Amino acid sequence: MSIVSIDSDNTRSEHDLLGNRDVPFQAYYGVHTLRAIENFPITGLPISHYPDLVRALAEIKIAAALTNQELGMLDAKKCEAIVAAGKEILQGNLHEQFVVDLIQGGAGTSTNMNANEVIANRALELLGHKRGQYQFLHPNEDVNMSQSTNDVYPTSLKLATYRGCQRLLTRMISLQEAFELKAEEFKDIIKVGRTQLQDAVPMTLGQEFRTYAVMLGEDVLRLREALPLICEINLGATAIGTGINTHPDYARKVRQHLVSIAGLPLETAPNLIEATQDCGAFVQLSGVLKRIAVKISKICHDLRLLSSGPRAGIGEINLPAVQAGSSIMPGKVNPVIPEVVNQVAYEVIGNDVTISFAAEAGQLQLNAFEPVIAYSMFRSVTHLTNAFNTLEHKCVRGITANESRIKELFDRSIVLVTALNPYIGYQHATEVAQEALVTGKRVYDIVLERGLLTAEKLDDILKPESMTMPRLPLR
Amino acid sequence: MSIVSIDSDNTRSEHDLLGNRDVPFQAYYGVHTLRAIENFPITGLPISHYPDLVRALAEIKIAAALTNQELGMLDAKKCEAIVAAGKEILQGNLHEQFVVDLIQGGAGTSTNMNANEVIANRALELLGHKRGQYQFLHPNEDVNMSQSTNDVYPTSLKLATYRGCQRLLTRMISLQEAFELKAEEFKDIIKVGRTQLQDAVPMTLGQEFRTYAVMLGEDVLRLREALPLICEINLGATAIGTGINTHPDYARKVRQHLVSIAGLPLETAPNLIEATQDCGAFVQLSGVLKRIAVKISKICHDLRLLSSGPRAGIGEINLPAVQAGSSIMPGKVNPVIPEVVNQVAYEVIGNDVTISFAAEAGQLQLNAFEPVIAYSMFRSVTHLTNAFNTLEHKCVRGITANESRIKELFDRSIVLVTALNPYIGYQHATEVAQEALVTGKRVYDIVLERGLLTAEKLDDILKPESMTMPRLPLR
Amino acid sequence: MSIVSIDSDNTRSEHDLLGNRDVPFQAYYGVHTLRAIENFPITGLPISHYPDLVRALAEIKIAAALTNQELGMLDAKKCEAIVAAGKEILQGNLHEQFVVDLIQGGAGTSTNMNANEVIANRALELLGHKRGQYQFLHPNEDVNMSQSTNDVYPTSLKLATYRGCQRLLTRMISLQEAFELKAEEFKDIIKVGRTQLQDAVPMTLGQEFRTYAVMLGEDVLRLREALPLICEINLGATAIGTGINTHPDYARKVRQHLVSIAGLPLETAPNLIEATQDCGAFVQLSGVLKRIAVKISKICHDLRLLSSGPRAGIGEINLPAVQAGSSIMPGKVNPVIPEVVNQVAYEVIGNDVTISFAAEAGQLQLNAFEPVIAYSMFRSVTHLTNAFNTLEHKCVRGITANESRIKELFDRSIVLVTALNPYIGYQHATEVAQEALVTGKRVYDIVLERGLLTAEKLDDILKPESMTMPRLPLR
Amino acid sequence: MSIVSIDSDNTRSEHDLLGNRDVPFQAYYGVHTLRAIENFPITGLPISHYPDLVRALAEIKIAAALTNQELGMLDAKKCEAIVAAGKEILQGNLHEQFVVDLIQGGAGTSTNMNANEVIANRALELLGHKRGQYQFLHPNEDVNMSQSTNDVYPTSLKLATYRGCQRLLTRMISLQEAFELKAEEFKDIIKVGRTQLQDAVPMTLGQEFRTYAVMLGEDVLRLREALPLICEINLGATAIGTGINTHPDYARKVRQHLVSIAGLPLETAPNLIEATQDCGAFVQLSGVLKRIAVKISKICHDLRLLSSGPRAGIGEINLPAVQAGSSIMPGKVNPVIPEVVNQVAYEVIGNDVTISFAAEAGQLQLNAFEPVIAYSMFRSVTHLTNAFNTLEHKCVRGITANESRIKELFDRSIVLVTALNPYIGYQHATEVAQEALVTGKRVYDIVLERGLLTAEKLDDILKPESMTMPRLPLR
Repeated sequence: MSIVSIDSDNTRSEHDLLGNRDVPFQAYYGVHTLRAIENFPITGLPISHYPDLVRALAEIKIAAALTNQELGMLDAKKCEAIVAAGKEILQGNLHEQFVVDLIQGGAGTSTNMNANEVIANRALELLGHKRGQYQFLHPNEDVNMSQSTNDVYPTSLKLATYRGCQRLLTRMISLQEAFELKAEEFKDIIKVGRTQLQDAVPMTLGQEFRTYAVMLGEDVLRLREALPLICEINLGATAIGTGINTHPDYARKVRQHLVSIAGLPLETAPNLIEATQDCGAFVQLSGVLKRIAVKISKICHDLRLLSSGPRAGIGEINLPAVQAGSSIMPGKVNPVIPEVVNQVAYEVIGNDVTISFAAEAGQLQLNAFEPVIAYSMFRSVTHLTNAFNTLEHKCVRGITANESRIKELFDRSIVLVTALNPYIGYQHATEVAQEALVTGKRVYDIVLERGLLTAEKLDDILKPESMTMPRLPLR
Repeated sequence: MSIVSIDSDNTRSEHDLLGNRDVPFQAYYGVHTLRAIENFPITGLPISHYPDLVRALAEIKIAAALTNQELGMLDAKKCEAIVAAGKEILQGNLHEQFVVDLIQGGAGTSTNMNANEVIANRALELLGHKRGQYQFLHPNEDVNMSQSTNDVYPTSLKLATYRGCQRLLTRMISLQEAFELKAEEFKDIIKVGRTQLQDAVPMTLGQEFRTYAVMLGEDVLRLREALPLICEINLGATAIGTGINTHPDYARKVRQHLVSIAGLPLETAPNLIEATQDCGAFVQLSGVLKRIAVKISKICHDLRLLSSGPRAGIGEINLPAVQAGSSIMPGKVNPVIPEVVNQVAYEVIGNDVTISFAAEAGQLQLNAFEPVIAYSMFRSVTHLTNAFNTLEHKCVRGITANESRIKELFDRSIVLVTALNPYIGYQHATEVAQEALVTGKRVYDIVLERGLLTAEKLDDILKPESMTMPRLPLR
Repeated sequence: MSIVSIDSDNTRSEHDLLGNRDVPFQAYYGVHTLRAIENFPITGLPISHYPDLVRALAEIKIAAALTNQELGMLDAKKCEAIVAAGKEILQGNLHEQFVVDLIQGGAGTSTNMNANEVIANRALELLGHKRGQYQFLHPNEDVNMSQSTNDVYPTSLKLATYRGCQRLLTRMISLQEAFELKAEEFKDIIKVGRTQLQDAVPMTLGQEFRTYAVMLGEDVLRLREALPLICEINLGATAIGTGINTHPDYARKVRQHLVSIAGLPLETAPNLIEATQDCGAFVQLSGVLKRIAVKISKICHDLRLLSSGPRAGIGEINLPAVQAGSSIMPGKVNPVIPEVVNQVAYEVIGNDVTISFAAEAGQLQLNAFEPVIAYSMFRSVTHLTNAFNTLEHKCVRGITANESRIKELFDRSIVLVTALNPYIGYQHATEVAQEALVTGKRVYDIVLERGLLTAEKLDDILKPESMTMPRLPLR
Repeated sequence: MSIVSIDSDNTRSEHDLLGNRDVPFQAYYGVHTLRAIENFPITGLPISHYPDLVRALAEIKIAAALTNQELGMLDAKKCEAIVAAGKEILQGNLHEQFVVDLIQGGAGTSTNMNANEVIANRALELLGHKRGQYQFLHPNEDVNMSQSTNDVYPTSLKLATYRGCQRLLTRMISLQEAFELKAEEFKDIIKVGRTQLQDAVPMTLGQEFRTYAVMLGEDVLRLREALPLICEINLGATAIGTGINTHPDYARKVRQHLVSIAGLPLETAPNLIEATQDCGAFVQLSGVLKRIAVKISKICHDLRLLSSGPRAGIGEINLPAVQAGSSIMPGKVNPVIPEVVNQVAYEVIGNDVTISFAAEAGQLQLNAFEPVIAYSMFRSVTHLTNAFNTLEHKCVRGITANESRIKELFDRSIVLVTALNPYIGYQHATEVAQEALVTGKRVYDIVLERGLLTAEKLDDILKPESMTMPRLPLR
């Protein structure tokens, strides 16, 4: 029995399956949490490092208590106390009591028990009892009523992830707009387009930046598509999805309560057994985050390439200087913001592999490795959000075009030659290109010299402006 | 000029940017293909290893020729010859002429040129000319008219991938049905549910197998969701997406032709510059394939666990014996089919990393690394398809339940104890469980001895059948 | 000029390439650090989260100052102050001043500047000046003399990593011993060996546990082999490895000082240009950490399998109970310690992918992505160390054998049949095995019934003890 | 009994655990192989795709037969026939009979049985019997005597991998030499060194290329270090490493025979149980291959960057043109060889993830997933070998320096300014750099104008030649 006995001023004794343990008297958590602290000293990052997770746990406990009371299983006074304690957490209190390491064994049991204990002890206080007097309100029997870690924990992860993704979406859209603004600003600047790092055909700098906006816009769509999966919860599944120890109306009602408390479009999974053992939604979401990472990393590589120099690189654009670049090279300014974004992208891609491993290792009715999925997912979402933020405000919004350099490169390139194909043929155009490269002569002059086209027709074909989109063949 | 000169009986001379080369006279491919063979002796797997890709290339060339003729850019006779040559390929001819290695530099240029050359040379023959007489019909100027590798190649990959995915979907749905049949067959067999490999609470074997059907059903939905992205093509983009050297009506018309030739729901990407440099659709699809791999691998782990034994394991199910298991251990039968599926899953997950790397490394207006994306994607799709097929037919459809073993394990387990929680409380139930484990007594007897419940009520609570779903609390 | 002007009681003004900024007056860091805080709000984990890194930076700054003074480039008073400030850091002071996020752009420049500024300001105080009065001792000109981020930062990562690996080695060896003890303890317990989860041939439980000790022992060797690479530093390389702005004797002398300060077997890389841009040592080490992760994860899977049950699994061993297993299932005890180790392993494997990406993305004379390599490497090393520790003390040392269960499984298995091969042949043995499986009869009895061997010879062959090693054929 | 009965002209009937099957009469393989073909139609790549593996299997069978005969367990005539059949395989015959898919369930059993059957049937012929008359010489009892798949298969993988790595080493060393030659050729060309894609400090093009040689040289060392692990075999382990059914002298003697047949420095693992279940050597080797991939990919990125242009990029070097670059852009030449190498590198990195998954999933006394490890490893080794070959011969050996471009970039850069630090201080140097960048004036002139140094001293400091290595400070 875990009836508390006050051994001293500093601790209270609590009891579990393994025997008695002294818990710090001031702690709201209890013996299960205490053992978990000792068992899992891995990362040093406690649950409270992700407030979204703490909040989600409280929301679930409130929803469960209200449902249990409605179904006549929990008395009103206990329910009220649990709800009140939960609301304190929603207001930001007691977060420091969520102390278990994010990476933990036990499939999240310690996280769930941490929540049960903190809420039970705070509720006990609100009821006029002392912490640890579980005979009046019990972490498992009352706070965890109709629940199991195996439905509470994945549900809490989904709520927390959903909110993180909403913040990420906001930042993605804002960055997309920043690229749009640049696309508009640069829309008339003709430049060399490049494929395989080799000069290709003309385009505008605006077209180049619009591409980045479009990429982000597509990623926004993909992330939004992945969110409904994250909103599919298994609350009511209890231990393995069969709903053992729940009232037949519980799953339906607890979802309704949770939807109204959390304000999220949650749905109960159609098959709770599947939903309890499957991590597919996280794998899918992580796949989308990886996609976002891959693409923003590509964009940052481009920004670094286009701003390379200042004198011995491409130098077509200038990134805003945000810090001195070197402890030894005076005046050096480096593309530090794109660089940090590249690194976050690499972390996200690595996290995706971690998540794949953890999801694949699930066995039978449960995946015991969800904590490392959560730990990886939370980092991916949070770091991407932060990276998009700094990329937008410390870099993209301040990018300027280096127009003279762009023109210099364009003028000395031979990217106009492709436009001659339809008029002089690929073979002749190849020979013109070769002569231009070897001699340094202008394509224009060579074509005239060879009598391949009249000056008038050439002028018409070689208008750079008309080479950046399809057009009717000249006759 | 590449006007052919017949040097000997065995070769013809062709010309390109780098000079003259002798091409085997009987070859339909030409000098560009020849150089590519020499440059990329990497995997030994030629383009023809994936007939879907060869077919897609032919379809695109036909669609382009028809469009070019309609727009007045290609004369009718040439068009007809190109179309006829293309159709021969669609009928399965000339595939052996697609000889370039699947992994190649040049962003697929060699694949596109291989197609241009084969079609040009066959078309020349049909027109009554000799192979290599490009003055009459030219690989670049005619077959490749209005096209660039940079729109042809990704479009061909998408067509090929789409068709592979359709076959995969068929096999997934068929396997899902096989699991459904088993779920129905096993629906009355009560067994121990397990979490974290430890005995948990009761369920039916039917519920266990239904889960696998549900998982597959969800994966089918995810794969279908990913396919529209694969149907978004960039034909008409030419070199970098600006559509240089295309008629303003080309992109629209060529899509229509391609849709009717290929019979696929293709759409032209809204922004062709973005579509030309972005590999997001492949990354997304590969992420979904990885998800499918992760989940089928989990299922196969379960099948291996549940059939472990025959005597010293779990042994709840029997997989059909499909081959002798050991070269040294007589009578041993191993779960070889799930094992091969696990391995394919691992390959797919590795391919996803390869694809992430290749996609992330794209620079500016093109991703030069699409060939390895294709090579990885094709293997993922094909091998998964094959794996699902063998899993269904060599394993799942023949699975039988080992009912006596299931009952033996259930009867000696204490998984009933959780059902007592609502009636005797978590603390008492814990003590009962501990006594049962230590003494080997039945939970039922201990509860009676301790006077916690009457026999009548116990009988009611401990009906295994009622523990596999939610139920109204007994009063 | 960065001569400080005291604007107010709370801040001091500092100057850099980008202009003036107010720095909190009490801060030991300066304007470069301030900007980095603002530019890189990514993970929330500052440099000080890894004290090994802070320590290494201080050691390098001390070594450089001593060398510069010896070479006549830094005056004695300045040197003394820098050394004194560095030693305070070595004693654990000022760590909270290392505030830049671990993931940062700029290839570590902000980390190096953070160190330069903290040491400069503390040294200024020791010299009787105020923080920010860089005219008396300058972060770049004095503290960073003869150095660049590009040699300081990778060198500091190597020192920090080396020390982390030493701690990891200690824990690995200790865990290896724990497994050895179990191997000895269990050396006489005959059991079923299993391949592909199917009963195979006899072995002892001691042999099974010795295997884990051997695996760890081999991993210890591999990790030791990787450490000399980590000891190869590029100090003296400065910006790109050409040693610009260093005295010809600098690289040699600074290594000697650093060796004696840090007490580590450091070597200067033979080619400093290569050493400055190459991340091969980290990739190699991470590969070894991944190997360690893969193997310990396999071991933990085995521990979970062997302890599965308690009634409906294999149940051959008991893991010590370290916490209650379930918030809903009374009496359940889960393998939470192996589970947490599996998860750390998955994190390490994901980190390896991150590191591969970051290393591969290096360009020309530098890899700008070393910070995320460090961030990933530090986590891999630290978390593995913690995981080994908890695995040893909370799990392996307390494992007990469930001898009656082991015997039960052994007796009803037919794993003896392989031993008959040399006497009755593979074909006959197969038939015996099949009959045993179908009928439940003992192999022994079937052989006798069939008259394949005499009872005497059978007794000889089927001694379990003699089946766990090679032996002379019986005649 | 598997005594053959000739049913028809076209097939012979064979028998196994599962019953009778007709085997094509002309086939040297038998019923076990036949079933495996049907069970594993995954990749379409048969064992014979990697002749090294077929050869290794034959060598092992020969060594085992000789040992068994020596130990009095196999009669001389049978031994002779087995050896003769094995030698035919070593000469390249019968390879087409190795038909099982490389990815297979059963931990390689089907590969081993394929070898047993082919050798048995060929040996039967040599003895004057018919294929399938196993009563005279049996695949399991004679060819597989003292062996199990679980020692034969991993041993064969190691032999095959070792030989592949030897070829890879040869190519790496040859490429290293090619880079060395270029380093020598370019040793006097002063150029801009770049960090973070920004102009940094001076170096020579020779130093840049020497770096690549050094990188390769280090990778050669790492690969050589990994090979002894690959030479550690578990022959003699039989089923699980206990050596059941082997003579006490078998393991020692069979190794000796195998060493002399194969000519490789093989060692028997000290603990055969560990060696049988552990895949650490493959994980380690794959980690090293990944390292090689990461680094060669970085080098290829550099080659592509340095040769970017021809007009609007860096353009410091010229890669040899090996094929026309574009189907639409005349005269375009792309860096196709580095591009194909990048892609192989990405494949190798993905393979490493596959191998990690497969190794981690091993359970208890065996890893059932070795076939996919082999499949991935063989591709990594072979494709890297091919990639190095084409990189050397089609690219590196033909690289030329674009000296005028290098000089142009150097002259207009301000990379000299770092060299002024020791003389005018970081602060003044920063201001000089800023003025140079803004105004386009030469650093030299600004320093003079500002009176910071005399022309004489400046000339001394700013000799580019002396900035590419450490030097004594000027007074």
